[in-house]
Amino acid sequence: MEKKLIRIGLMGFGNIGTGTYATLEMNRSTIEQQTGIDFQITKILEKDLERKRDVVAPKELFTQNPDDLFLDPDIDIVIELLGGIQPATDFMLKAMNNGKHVVTANKAAVAANYDELREAAEKNKVMFRYEASVGGGIPILNALTTALKANSFIEIMGILNGTTNYILSQMTDFGLEYEEVLKVAQEKGFAEADPTADVEGIDVANKLSILISLVFGIRVPPESIPTEGITKITKDDIKRAAKSGNKIKLIGSAKRENGNLTYSVRPTLIPVSHPLAGVNNEFNAIFVKGNAVGELMFYGKGAGPLPTGSAVMGDVIEIGTAIVKGAAYDIVISGGKRK
Amino acid sequence: MEKKLIRIGLMGFGNIGTGTYATLEMNRSTIEQQTGIDFQITKILEKDLERKRDVVAPKELFTQNPDDLFLDPDIDIVIELLGGIQPATDFMLKAMNNGKHVVTANKAAVAANYDELREAAEKNKVMFRYEASVGGGIPILNALTTALKANSFIEIMGILNGTTNYILSQMTDFGLEYEEVLKVAQEKGFAEADPTADVEGIDVANKLSILISLVFGIRVPPESIPTEGITKITKDDIKRAAKSGNKIKLIGSAKRENGNLTYSVRPTLIPVSHPLAGVNNEFNAIFVKGNAVGELMFYGKGAGPLPTGSAVMGDVIEIGTAIVKGAAYDIVISGGKRK
Repeated sequence: MEKKLIRIGLMGFGNIGTGTYATLEMNRSTIEQQTGIDFQITKILEKDLERKRDVVAPKELFTQNPDDLFLDPDIDIVIELLGGIQPATDFMLKAMNNGKHVVTANKAAVAANYDELREAAEKNKVMFRYEASVGGGIPILNALTTALKANSFIEIMGILNGTTNYILSQMTDFGLEYEEVLKVAQEKGFAEADPTADVEGIDVANKLSILISLVFGIRVPPESIPTEGITKITKDDIKRAAKSGNKIKLIGSAKRENGNLTYSVRPTLIPVSHPLAGVNNEFNAIFVKGNAVGELMFYGKGAGPLPTGSAVMGDVIEIGTAIVKGAAYDIVISGGKRK
Repeated sequence: MEKKLIRIGLMGFGNIGTGTYATLEMNRSTIEQQTGIDFQITKILEKDLERKRDVVAPKELFTQNPDDLFLDPDIDIVIELLGGIQPATDFMLKAMNNGKHVVTANKAAVAANYDELREAAEKNKVMFRYEASVGGGIPILNALTTALKANSFIEIMGILNGTTNYILSQMTDFGLEYEEVLKVAQEKGFAEADPTADVEGIDVANKLSILISLVFGIRVPPESIPTEGITKITKDDIKRAAKSGNKIKLIGSAKRENGNLTYSVRPTLIPVSHPLAGVNNEFNAIFVKGNAVGELMFYGKGAGPLPTGSAVMGDVIEIGTAIVKGAAYDIVISGGKRK
């Protein structure tokens, strides 16, 4: 097979950015042997050039000017890993308007601007993929939009945030209060200095909004999802739950019954016999019920540099393969058309 | 979107054949809205026209002559659901040699003739897909060959046979002997009149052979996999396992360590805390470990007409979508190239 070169512009060289870079470096030869494609990150947009990182990239790749990526005619794919709604959304739109395919792990930006981003992809005939935005390394979006497409979906629910699942697991296993565990989690880097988006359920609402779009073809902005976080859960709540044979988990769920779609993010009693009860610490799991396939569960690491890098690079490889085949148009994840 | 018509020839109208037919009928409008494609089964190869079936297809679709499918220029995709190595393999090869894309659920035929079938697909530039051959409705092959492609895999193991998992679950839950449960399973239709392929582990060896090809890029014929079934397991074995905190599960596994690949199918002690211990009765689950994504588990129904129909139709939809995009060449699952 003739070797092809696909050039990538990477936006953001933090946790996920370095994880993506490391995933590619670590498995470059495996990927090349399977696909016949040489994937090269040729530019990295990053403000903070001084920060100490475990992963080192050649200095000459770095730029602080996003136009160096948008306007580089050799770059085929832009990976957006900046996080936050802006400027990430504008950067993704600009990349697509300049004919670049876009891959992102940014749930906040995708959930906030789902329609606009998808429309830009369609208009520009580029691919737009965001597997890593839900469930980290778990290939749930890909499954929903390809192998499971012969189903009408009835329900989707899951543990979609590793930080809160870690906190609840530690509270349960060691009989600790929320504040105690949060403090340790922050020290260990499992929770951010400002943990609001995680502990108030906002991150889960973003992911659930994306899942609802793909599974039910209905656009529900995250702020329209009734959302309750875990900050009010006490160790007594957890003890009481245990006495009745349950665990408390932060669950994002959506269900269609008699044509009505209901959805919420909230701490939920899960019977210890339920598969989701065994999903602890940083692990995520997503339950799907389809009218043909029945119940499915996907389990894995919902965050972390390498698991997320796996999902980002999975999207990049799919796009690269389609580019090489001359088929890289409109293979956009097409959940928006589901009715 | 302009509506396109994709015509399908279906081989076999037994359990899986009727399940596939029913899946398509049940979700036809959902599939059409999402893909813009009208999938029509236009011919059904079936010898037994008199058998009572829950699913009824128009009489004029049936034929007893396979050439009616191979030589029909309007048929785009042939679905092979006859089971058994022959004549299924010859029929699939003949379909491909006549330019038809092929979808199958037939693990025995795929495991026995993996290279020959893949080569025929490449030679004829048709797609060949077999998601339903491993794990029934669980979209594991698709995940391994798309979203997880940025990984080097370390290990794959799983509960890959619903009949034996049902027997072991019932023996465990009700303290019964193997022969007692088998008899009831046969009466209920959960086990076949001749259960050899299931209970001796042959079915699992077929599936593991396929997984090894995709995950490690190495061809290990099923008869080369050390295989032990569940016929010698007694209720005392299960009690003894329980005392040491374990369950007995029939596990197919393959692992790469220091460049060596080891593999086997055998009854295995699984700690009750392990996610696979909670996989009971007709459910299957597959554990994968990749060097980027870490541990993943996929859980769902490993058999049954509709779950298997979901997987078959998922493959059909992928192929149909590629045909409509003019990209239906060489999107063959490309595990054989993994090194």
